[in-house]
Amino acid sequence: MLEKRKPLPIHEAVGKIMDIKIDQETEIVPLKDSLNRFLAEDIKAKHDVPHFNRSPYDGFAIRAEDTRLAETGNSIEFEVIEKLAAGTVAEKKVGPFQASRIMTGAQMPDGADTVIMLELVKTYEKNNKDYISIKRKQHSGENVSFKGEDAKQGELLVQKGTIINPGVVAVLATFGYHQVKTAKKPVIGLFATGTELLEVSEELVPGKIRNSNAHMIQAQAERAGAEAKYYGQLPDDIDICYSAIKQALTEVDILITTGGVSVGDYDIMPDIYKRLEADVLFNKVAMRPGSVTTVAKLDRKILYGLSGNPSACYVGFELFVRPVIRTKLFSDKPHLRREEAWLNVDFPKANPFTRLIRGNLSFEQGKLRAEPSGLDKSSVVMSLAGANALIVLPSGTRGYQKGDIVDVLLLEDYEGSKGAFKGV
Amino acid sequence: MLEKRKPLPIHEAVGKIMDIKIDQETEIVPLKDSLNRFLAEDIKAKHDVPHFNRSPYDGFAIRAEDTRLAETGNSIEFEVIEKLAAGTVAEKKVGPFQASRIMTGAQMPDGADTVIMLELVKTYEKNNKDYISIKRKQHSGENVSFKGEDAKQGELLVQKGTIINPGVVAVLATFGYHQVKTAKKPVIGLFATGTELLEVSEELVPGKIRNSNAHMIQAQAERAGAEAKYYGQLPDDIDICYSAIKQALTEVDILITTGGVSVGDYDIMPDIYKRLEADVLFNKVAMRPGSVTTVAKLDRKILYGLSGNPSACYVGFELFVRPVIRTKLFSDKPHLRREEAWLNVDFPKANPFTRLIRGNLSFEQGKLRAEPSGLDKSSVVMSLAGANALIVLPSGTRGYQKGDIVDVLLLEDYEGSKGAFKGV
Repeated sequence: MLEKRKPLPIHEAVGKIMDIKIDQETEIVPLKDSLNRFLAEDIKAKHDVPHFNRSPYDGFAIRAEDTRLAETGNSIEFEVIEKLAAGTVAEKKVGPFQASRIMTGAQMPDGADTVIMLELVKTYEKNNKDYISIKRKQHSGENVSFKGEDAKQGELLVQKGTIINPGVVAVLATFGYHQVKTAKKPVIGLFATGTELLEVSEELVPGKIRNSNAHMIQAQAERAGAEAKYYGQLPDDIDICYSAIKQALTEVDILITTGGVSVGDYDIMPDIYKRLEADVLFNKVAMRPGSVTTVAKLDRKILYGLSGNPSACYVGFELFVRPVIRTKLFSDKPHLRREEAWLNVDFPKANPFTRLIRGNLSFEQGKLRAEPSGLDKSSVVMSLAGANALIVLPSGTRGYQKGDIVDVLLLEDYEGSKGAFKGV
Repeated sequence: MLEKRKPLPIHEAVGKIMDIKIDQETEIVPLKDSLNRFLAEDIKAKHDVPHFNRSPYDGFAIRAEDTRLAETGNSIEFEVIEKLAAGTVAEKKVGPFQASRIMTGAQMPDGADTVIMLELVKTYEKNNKDYISIKRKQHSGENVSFKGEDAKQGELLVQKGTIINPGVVAVLATFGYHQVKTAKKPVIGLFATGTELLEVSEELVPGKIRNSNAHMIQAQAERAGAEAKYYGQLPDDIDICYSAIKQALTEVDILITTGGVSVGDYDIMPDIYKRLEADVLFNKVAMRPGSVTTVAKLDRKILYGLSGNPSACYVGFELFVRPVIRTKLFSDKPHLRREEAWLNVDFPKANPFTRLIRGNLSFEQGKLRAEPSGLDKSSVVMSLAGANALIVLPSGTRGYQKGDIVDVLLLEDYEGSKGAFKGV
């Protein structure tokens, strides 16, 4: 008997998932392993930066007032009293018409309020003492990086939930975070179902295909910031499946099965959700591809039944799994980043359902252009390789023309969006 | 004595580096570890996809000609002779007015040339046999995914030098690449110089700062696709430095030192290049920050003397080291991706040198907008955390206004550019 399924608009489906209370955990990692992890705390300046007045140039630290009368025709002489390498602290105070040789990054000596650059002075010796002469008026504070100029102690520098990029690493190093409080990577469990599936290392045989979804989802999970655990293929036997899934659920945060979710005779996932007493949030979404996506909730775990079709599976992951992963990673923009782009091609046919076209974004003089990255049939793996976005074509009675502005969802992006869909 | 240095335009500096013959090596990695690695070979379809005619739907495989007279008022009866799960091969040929129940993904049985969807038929039993009735005319080839429809054997699918994303993983899995020929990650050696530097785990003391550059460059190297090896800090002693650098050069492809490259009294790197008999390609670039960047060549290795200033160091890495790394990774677009963007702010002052502003790109209705990500002084680490681009402001006699179109170099990007600078 055929089960009637009511397709949910995408934003409602996403909304049902995001209504679940999603746990967040933290993990301390060494700074050197922190790249691409997500911050589990706000990073505030632990001290002023710089934490002392410093010289941004190689030159001489002097008192500006002593250069008052300096000009091309009138050079002023200063006695060099000390040499300050970066990392050292001056022992002498700079007095009237005295100068301390100072290196880039060195702390300013007391008494001095400006640095004149090395290139602008004449150096010479007289009676075994070093002197410089200056032909240029300096202002107090000129060429000095003042304490707290870059960051004030306590200032919020990087927000919780931010992905750690090389710049964030530099900030963390500056403030002495050799251990970093990051979000623990969620663990995604993964089963493939389908008697037609071969392992990647197997030779092709008639009627069978290699299992590409499991590897693809592992990669998608990693890209999203999670860790994936592939449990292998489930046979079409409900008891074995039930036990395997029940066991896996004790080890993971999220469990994904691919295939076995359509309405054919051999699909067993709906029965398994029932036996697990999982709360099915929806089992059909008004979109192509990926309409046969099932999401269920069991205690604090989320179960996904994604389509066995590679593209439907891919889209289902990005729309429904990724935001949960990113929320667990403390991001407040957990969805695919949504932007607008100009269509580079026509889509003359009307779509009864919202379509998500695997697309390639490019720029033309600063304007975002979108076009399909290949054939748009849900079985086509090839178009996924070149896709860096999903083009959203809301359902409607007319098609879309080249030049129309449409929403695009960016796949290779670090920032995300607070919401990915507006009523489609 | 002050050495006179002739600043090179950026594109000439980059050109001198890219003229070096850069070695490329390959490494076989398991598919599951291949994400974000770079392909060392073109990926061609090893076989047609699909490699058999398959059904994209659950339904019944029939002969289209038998539905010639089917219409709302006239249903045609078919006897169901077989049930075809995905992964199985039909034993029976579909004859006139016969049908085989077929699942999504299953191979088409001989004789049949179309699939009618499950939802469109009436099923019933008669004399212990299964029948369906059809009220709709089908066309030959309707609802069949034909052999080779997605990809033809031998077709180029993914180019050498492409970064492996989840879609590429799916393609690799489809064709049985459980081992993938990738580019070997270049090894970047790293020394910090500067007596002012503390390790990240050390407490601050007057006049000293923590070494953020080493960690930042490690992260930049990783982001670019390389592996970094931090050798610690060099003291300001030329003999110790020379030995350490000479030893490190036997272990790495690229060697970076930070600091010790300006023209102050304590800078020793120029002497070290001389003793190594390295060929210095340039030691000053007409740009801010990063003007004191030195690049030298020694046999097939490249030595970089990057500025000790964090932002200058960061920019120097992205402009001069990254393209070498990406070339070693077989990319033919090794430079930072260059696009155009509208300035969101004024830069009223003229620049005598080309400026590279750490910037944040955003979209406004599909148009790329650029603005600084923080203070633009070369010592400022904070602005690096929020930077996703470098804004290029070529030198000139006037400033730049909000709304001007400028070049931007994308930092968090997978694609790159063939060339990053046009004559600046």
